[in-house]
Amino acid sequence: MDFQSLRSELLTKTKQQLHDAVTIDVSISQALSAYDDLQVQLNHLSKRLRDWTGYFVPELERRISTNAHFVQEISRGLAHEDSAMGGTPAQPTQQIIERFAKQINELYSFQEELLMYLEKTLQEFAPNLQVLLGTTITARVISAAGSLEHLSRLPSSTLQLLGAEKALFRHLRTGARSPKHGFIINHPLVSQASSKMRGKIARALADKMSICAKLDYFKGEFLAKKYLQDLEKRFG
Amino acid sequence: MDFQSLRSELLTKTKQQLHDAVTIDVSISQALSAYDDLQVQLNHLSKRLRDWTGYFVPELERRISTNAHFVQEISRGLAHEDSAMGGTPAQPTQQIIERFAKQINELYSFQEELLMYLEKTLQEFAPNLQVLLGTTITARVISAAGSLEHLSRLPSSTLQLLGAEKALFRHLRTGARSPKHGFIINHPLVSQASSKMRGKIARALADKMSICAKLDYFKGEFLAKKYLQDLEKRFG
Repeated sequence: MDFQSLRSELLTKTKQQLHDAVTIDVSISQALSAYDDLQVQLNHLSKRLRDWTGYFVPELERRISTNAHFVQEISRGLAHEDSAMGGTPAQPTQQIIERFAKQINELYSFQEELLMYLEKTLQEFAPNLQVLLGTTITARVISAAGSLEHLSRLPSSTLQLLGAEKALFRHLRTGARSPKHGFIINHPLVSQASSKMRGKIARALADKMSICAKLDYFKGEFLAKKYLQDLEKRFG
Repeated sequence: MDFQSLRSELLTKTKQQLHDAVTIDVSISQALSAYDDLQVQLNHLSKRLRDWTGYFVPELERRISTNAHFVQEISRGLAHEDSAMGGTPAQPTQQIIERFAKQINELYSFQEELLMYLEKTLQEFAPNLQVLLGTTITARVISAAGSLEHLSRLPSSTLQLLGAEKALFRHLRTGARSPKHGFIINHPLVSQASSKMRGKIARALADKMSICAKLDYFKGEFLAKKYLQDLEKRFG
């Protein structure tokens, strides 16, 4: 084999490896980050729309507290709101405000689409974790671990604290109380429990999480529903 | 006149005053802030899209340096780019990435619309300033002053330094060098001048700015074109 063909073969192999490295893990992390970015930006843009429209329809601004709902209302038209207070904006101002609201509204829809994408992807890629933890927590733990493969190798004590790194290092450094839960604090079983029970439930949940991650990575059975029911029976 | 009708008359008057207080100034400031918000968010979202697509079409990511252009390219379809490196995303991933790009693309368009709204509004509301300073600088000085009325009362030395408050107070506090220009640093006459000439030009421009603000507020003549030509002849 001459140098040229060896070189070209190695190049092809490297490309193939690069290709394989592009797994679904990356898209899960990226979609989750985009989702989180949008959350911050939507809050900011909605606040801006509220400030602006507050000069024209102050009652509406006060009446509707949910941002998404407020934005939707304005996107339907600023004029249909018969305002007793406030002023009427000039035609071009009214138009640009309504366009602004429509734009934010579409961003809200797109954020929903991202969540649906994550849900469908995880149902296929990590069906056990998705059922045990729900879509966003599953995406967060995979993203934090870097990949499903890496997640499946972590001990359950680490899984329990994923997402609580700051509190963990504070504990190690200063002797402050050790954290009992990371991302899974948002799991209904943990968040709805009394603070006395939370550590215990978090540990039990992390145990099941560890099994589910392995099942999902090695394409094993679907057992998450049973696990979840067991946990709910025990702690619910 | 009984108490009831007096009360209702005063209420009507107050409402009218509130109504009048809602001037175009507010919408200029709000539109400008929305424009600036979007600038930050568009950079952030474009960066996110670049990161994500970089795994699939790394050449494209490197080839196109402008964010807006890159986003537009991806929104036309991730697949049409025949990638030698990188991997092919699954169908749903491809779809969500393209939807993401389209969404960012629309935000870019909306940002343009905001600028056009500002331009048209200022052409009517502050025609002299708009021609002398351009749309964004005019919007910034009105927004910083709070209103065109307030702007028209500021001395030209203040106008020259509007937007350089931080540097000004540092100068007063620590004796560091005094700033020579605020927002007008972005005016072509100032930004393209040698650093030796900048202070001089900024002062001359601020003088004209002061006259233009008064002309616009009191609905005077349109003289900005002549002023600008004079300045260009002197310093251009």
